[in-house]
Amino acid sequence: MTATPLPPTQATIKFLQQPTSESWIQQAIDHLDTMLLDHSHCERKAAGVALNLMFRYPSSQKLVRMLTAIAQEELEHFEQVNQWLDRRGIALAPLSSPPYAAGLKAEIRKGEPDRMLDSLLVAGLIEARSHERLGLLGLHCPDPELAKFYRGLMASEARHYGAYWTLATTYFDREVVNLRLEELAIVESRLLSTLHPEPRIHS
Amino acid sequence: MTATPLPPTQATIKFLQQPTSESWIQQAIDHLDTMLLDHSHCERKAAGVALNLMFRYPSSQKLVRMLTAIAQEELEHFEQVNQWLDRRGIALAPLSSPPYAAGLKAEIRKGEPDRMLDSLLVAGLIEARSHERLGLLGLHCPDPELAKFYRGLMASEARHYGAYWTLATTYFDREVVNLRLEELAIVESRLLSTLHPEPRIHS
Repeated sequence: MTATPLPPTQATIKFLQQPTSESWIQQAIDHLDTMLLDHSHCERKAAGVALNLMFRYPSSQKLVRMLTAIAQEELEHFEQVNQWLDRRGIALAPLSSPPYAAGLKAEIRKGEPDRMLDSLLVAGLIEARSHERLGLLGLHCPDPELAKFYRGLMASEARHYGAYWTLATTYFDREVVNLRLEELAIVESRLLSTLHPEPRIHS
Repeated sequence: MTATPLPPTQATIKFLQQPTSESWIQQAIDHLDTMLLDHSHCERKAAGVALNLMFRYPSSQKLVRMLTAIAQEELEHFEQVNQWLDRRGIALAPLSSPPYAAGLKAEIRKGEPDRMLDSLLVAGLIEARSHERLGLLGLHCPDPELAKFYRGLMASEARHYGAYWTLATTYFDREVVNLRLEELAIVESRLLSTLHPEPRIHS
């Protein structure tokens, strides 16, 4: 196992408290087909998250417009990942979720406007982690074509967490955003501190 | 009031039992801004319907792939309608729904596989009606630019109900589909037989 962690970018540092472990990289490389199938689910879920927020805050102009673009891009990636599944002869199938997203969702406070802030930051954190992990797949995936595909997706993921961050600071004071982001980022890294036994993008 | 109903296409006849009344056309032309706002909600909801079906049937390859394309197109239209709202200085805002969609949803049977068939046919019927009504707006809207926009959307709506129909006949016998479609189409036309007092795409 020769994996070297991706040098974290400035933006990744801002969002993520801890880098991904080498054990995740090994697990991912050993189960590329399952990772692709899970990735397909992740892209569909990411589109769902953006759309749900648009339903919940239909009058928030900037949120609606930015999340429309994100949802469109997630669906484009969903289709691209599904083409990869096709190419590798992997059938679409349900897959159990690791505790990651549910653990983060549990941190979202119920009352507004806290709920909006937390929802945006949790979505942003998930995008930041996806960015980091797709980058690691882009570095370490033994199939050069697939590695190239992962690297190609990274730029969008970076734009997505940037967009969620921008939206949070549009509707909330930057100081409030930073404090809450730090709290949530600690939980996010803690949720990934024990590797989930099943290979997943967020195991 | 000089409105003449759009000559129904072959495909529209297949789906819709009754054409839209002239009173709807008049109501729509008299409230173009509200219609645009409601149309924005309709496009977002249509994307939501496609995405929900993709979540419910994640292993159905053809459904997932065709509905990905539909959801992408609905989001594109959502953005285009929102640009029209912007241009006319209409703020995004919630809007009460007419009883139409809830009335159709109530017809969807709970157990599978009936639920899948009914969901596809109800989505197809809504697309068929939207196709007909956007066509009427394209004919009668006094703003020539906006009328052109409505006519531009018609082709997609036609493709969408065609896609839902294709999916229904992919997973179910054509005879079963036709029988159920006729039942649901009767309900669909009945729901629109009394004009809803508030101007909506499906009033």
